[in-house]
Amino acid sequence: MPIYQAPLEDYNFIIDDVLDTYTCFKDIPQFSDVNRELMESILSEAGKFAEQEIQPLNQLGDQQGCRVENGEVIAPPCFKEPMKKYIDAGWTQLSESPEYGGQGLPYLLNGAICEMNLSACTAFSLYGIRDGSIAAIEKNASQEIKDKYLPKLVEGIWGGPMCMTEPQGGSDLGLIKTKAEPQADGSYSVTGTKMFITGGDSDLIENSNSIMLVLARIPGAPDGIKGISLFIVPKFLVNDDGSLGERNHTSVGSIEHKMGLNGSATCVMNYDGAKGFLISKENKGMAAMFAMVNRSRYLIGQQGTAAASVAYQNAAQYALDRIQFRSLTGPKNPDLPADSIIVHPDVRRLLLTQRSFVEGSRAFNLYVAKLFDELDYSQDEDRKTRCQSLLDLLTPILKGFNTEMGWESVNHGLQVFGGHGYIRENGMEQFVRDSRAAAIYEGTTGIQAMDLLARKVLATQGEMLKIFTSEINSFCTENKDHCVVGKMANELQAATARWLELTMEIGMSAMKNPDNLGAASVDYLMYSGYVTLGYFWVRMAQAAADKEKQTPFTQAKLQTAQFYFDRILPRTATLEKTIQAGSASIMEMNAEAFVL
Amino acid sequence: MPIYQAPLEDYNFIIDDVLDTYTCFKDIPQFSDVNRELMESILSEAGKFAEQEIQPLNQLGDQQGCRVENGEVIAPPCFKEPMKKYIDAGWTQLSESPEYGGQGLPYLLNGAICEMNLSACTAFSLYGIRDGSIAAIEKNASQEIKDKYLPKLVEGIWGGPMCMTEPQGGSDLGLIKTKAEPQADGSYSVTGTKMFITGGDSDLIENSNSIMLVLARIPGAPDGIKGISLFIVPKFLVNDDGSLGERNHTSVGSIEHKMGLNGSATCVMNYDGAKGFLISKENKGMAAMFAMVNRSRYLIGQQGTAAASVAYQNAAQYALDRIQFRSLTGPKNPDLPADSIIVHPDVRRLLLTQRSFVEGSRAFNLYVAKLFDELDYSQDEDRKTRCQSLLDLLTPILKGFNTEMGWESVNHGLQVFGGHGYIRENGMEQFVRDSRAAAIYEGTTGIQAMDLLARKVLATQGEMLKIFTSEINSFCTENKDHCVVGKMANELQAATARWLELTMEIGMSAMKNPDNLGAASVDYLMYSGYVTLGYFWVRMAQAAADKEKQTPFTQAKLQTAQFYFDRILPRTATLEKTIQAGSASIMEMNAEAFVL
Repeated sequence: MPIYQAPLEDYNFIIDDVLDTYTCFKDIPQFSDVNRELMESILSEAGKFAEQEIQPLNQLGDQQGCRVENGEVIAPPCFKEPMKKYIDAGWTQLSESPEYGGQGLPYLLNGAICEMNLSACTAFSLYGIRDGSIAAIEKNASQEIKDKYLPKLVEGIWGGPMCMTEPQGGSDLGLIKTKAEPQADGSYSVTGTKMFITGGDSDLIENSNSIMLVLARIPGAPDGIKGISLFIVPKFLVNDDGSLGERNHTSVGSIEHKMGLNGSATCVMNYDGAKGFLISKENKGMAAMFAMVNRSRYLIGQQGTAAASVAYQNAAQYALDRIQFRSLTGPKNPDLPADSIIVHPDVRRLLLTQRSFVEGSRAFNLYVAKLFDELDYSQDEDRKTRCQSLLDLLTPILKGFNTEMGWESVNHGLQVFGGHGYIRENGMEQFVRDSRAAAIYEGTTGIQAMDLLARKVLATQGEMLKIFTSEINSFCTENKDHCVVGKMANELQAATARWLELTMEIGMSAMKNPDNLGAASVDYLMYSGYVTLGYFWVRMAQAAADKEKQTPFTQAKLQTAQFYFDRILPRTATLEKTIQAGSASIMEMNAEAFVL
Repeated sequence: MPIYQAPLEDYNFIIDDVLDTYTCFKDIPQFSDVNRELMESILSEAGKFAEQEIQPLNQLGDQQGCRVENGEVIAPPCFKEPMKKYIDAGWTQLSESPEYGGQGLPYLLNGAICEMNLSACTAFSLYGIRDGSIAAIEKNASQEIKDKYLPKLVEGIWGGPMCMTEPQGGSDLGLIKTKAEPQADGSYSVTGTKMFITGGDSDLIENSNSIMLVLARIPGAPDGIKGISLFIVPKFLVNDDGSLGERNHTSVGSIEHKMGLNGSATCVMNYDGAKGFLISKENKGMAAMFAMVNRSRYLIGQQGTAAASVAYQNAAQYALDRIQFRSLTGPKNPDLPADSIIVHPDVRRLLLTQRSFVEGSRAFNLYVAKLFDELDYSQDEDRKTRCQSLLDLLTPILKGFNTEMGWESVNHGLQVFGGHGYIRENGMEQFVRDSRAAAIYEGTTGIQAMDLLARKVLATQGEMLKIFTSEINSFCTENKDHCVVGKMANELQAATARWLELTMEIGMSAMKNPDNLGAASVDYLMYSGYVTLGYFWVRMAQAAADKEKQTPFTQAKLQTAQFYFDRILPRTATLEKTIQAGSASIMEMNAEAFVL
């Protein structure tokens, strides 16, 4: 049975020593009470909950799976009691607004806790995530709607699934057909079918409601994404006193049988003249939805880190315990019939690839979570603008790069187990199956890459990118003569300069032929990710080196940083070439020749 | 439901136009009757069988799975009838020796058919593979044993599982504990437990026997791999008239519940004083086993190509059919609400990555299969020696590189399907689950890499490598001014030169520190694979360009070749850097720090 240990020391190191969060929060009144002691104690409690209550559900939930009865989802029974405990303990409310019952603590805290929960049991944790829906309602809906729905969403007893995708169009929301007809009472009658709706319904909580955020088209609206509006469609209508009223005309058509995440219900949702309430302006649903997209993508991006983290922990422990063959430099455990496989360089290479991704992306994730906090609560408008730019730039990198690297990492974890990794009871293959979805849902890597390159980088003439690369450059310049990390800082600075040059080159070549943009996009996203993680690795290395007392923890940070620079950052060498290869050999083949 | 189409045109192109097989076979008497017409007609029949009889079993076999009853395996019932047809049609006998009922046709033919069968249904096909066991018996056993066991193995009605791995040691065969005590009648009493035995038992064929090849230790034998002998342990003892006798003391302890290949029984085999017959010389079991290792590894290496091939076909068809978004260069299907996703450069990048691997590795595989034929049947000793060297060098590359790239490819196939790739009924996720084992069994990628770098390359002072690189160089020199492929040939020649330089560098650095060998090994294997596929791509491009008549097929070959040189071969740029990074940042961390 797999193990999981909450990475508390790493959180505290990153939040305090690397990101200097408490200093940054000093001039934000909302966080005047937030200090290391408070954060440490909450993280420690959350870690215990993840380890003791959530992690034991992972394999069981996969076996029990979900089913549909009478148009409603029956979730894995083993999830019920822990979900009640989770809600009762207030874990859903931490970083939500006090106006609706939240505790107003930093989203940073939520970010860390979300990673632990996803590591412990992704399928369970997906039911608990409604940050994006809450944000969308908070930023778009009328006060009446906020007062009616937000308190129970924040409390965690109502679900808030996002219902965008339809069978005929997938990610292309311009093809949405679900229609919403205005009614005399100001509500809308919603009719259509949505699919791939994570947690569209569940029976985990008694007297629960499901507050669905549904994209639909009002009759007469323009074609494409310019004619889409955002609605709330509750499973049960809500009376004025907040109690549950009539059952709305929504039902679960079916759930998908998937490669993994068997404990998480992926629903086809049917709306047959269901009552809905417009929360965006008419035809402005896409803009309203984008208010929640950064958060939703952030959380799924974290799934890459989370899955890699737990897979790494299990692989590392296995590599210590399992004995096979002798070290190339002579026996290390002469009393045993063979050495533990951790002596083999290639096993270490697999483990350090995972570890350097896990810890590097964790620092990246927490940095981004802190941006959400500064954006929401800083009183300095320039700082807010800067945070918004960085968030817009970094979200597609975080989502795309983390889920791709997370996938690579969990597979290395399985590989360390050899044949035993392929066996269900050891749990490694479940990490692989569960995490395969992460590079797909909330926008595939291809979609993130176009969002990054076309919308965030080129459409802003590189403005957002320059904000981030300037920050990297300042840090590198400051540390270029640092006795421990100076060499890394110089290498990073060169890679960052190259990043900007490549951006210019793509921009020029895309003007000649827009397909060059698409052809370079994913490689560009990955290039961006490697440089970004390089930045967080130098920052961690610098913070570790500058600690007064060197410990096994700081030592391991420095060693992993060096590994990242030796073995992972050089992946940019290939990407540089493929980014420059253009689109000719990609576009020349006739469509029909692909099935020759 | 997934589709599968046998790639007959590609086989004929590679076998005849690229490898010039019929000319090569002219001076081999065994193949005097082998010509294009014969080969084409057999491949065409085999293709039909794979498409019509085997492919429909893939999803069903995954659902039905295997179970154990009374120490025997119950395989998926849907496999029974097709297995009978497969055997009745004589497909198991094609390339086996006529002395034991085989048809003595080229192994090349077998290689191609095996790829098709593995594409159609890997789990089913694994029951049909016994080439390695037949080779081991043929090359090691007494005439009496050969006469007793080979005819029914060749006929395909008896199974021939290889039983090496034990729970305590995994791939480290030096740790084998199974003991074989000499008996008065010249037989041995075998006691122990083996695990991960693919098709250790099955009920697919009535009156079947399972002829297990078991590695075990005779009392008093030296420790480690120098004290291991190879035995035949039949499930049923065989009477002198060839009929089945007493049930031997063997049983299936359990079968594994796996990530994939659910239709293939992976058995724990127990031997409780089972009667066994020594077929190697005493304590020379490892050498005897190596007689079969090249063939077994070849077949599993093909699994990478096979899985990628069927996944590619389905992804390409889906990309033509599915419509989402508009082309970056303006609508391509203005009458439809969106364009087919094949217009998007990144979808094409995913597809061409798969395709360039599939076709490149197919040419590589068939080249290697032809080496087996020349080794076995050529009458020219120098040619045989050369073939043996090439086979020894190329087998670990074929196994390691193909299974890693096959894994990457099937995942690209799933990605093209987006969310629908994650759904079981569409079949893409099964290709992913089924093919994850390929980089593990028959020796993990790490083990292949050490075999390649330490045993095949460095221990021979680069002799084997030079044979292959000289062949590449001659081809490149010959074609350096070729108007179509000249540029590719020059690029390949540079990469080949760099391959030799890197080999020298690793050799030098390994003398200083043997861990540098292990640290470079997998990257070296991958480097070798990219250059090797580059060689087969230039050869295919040249053969396509030199065809009298250009067709959509030859055009697609040239375009895919260019894609390979633009987008895949540049991966060597990163590998060059990581190979040179040494082992310091891999080995410095204390073992205990890995679980910090």
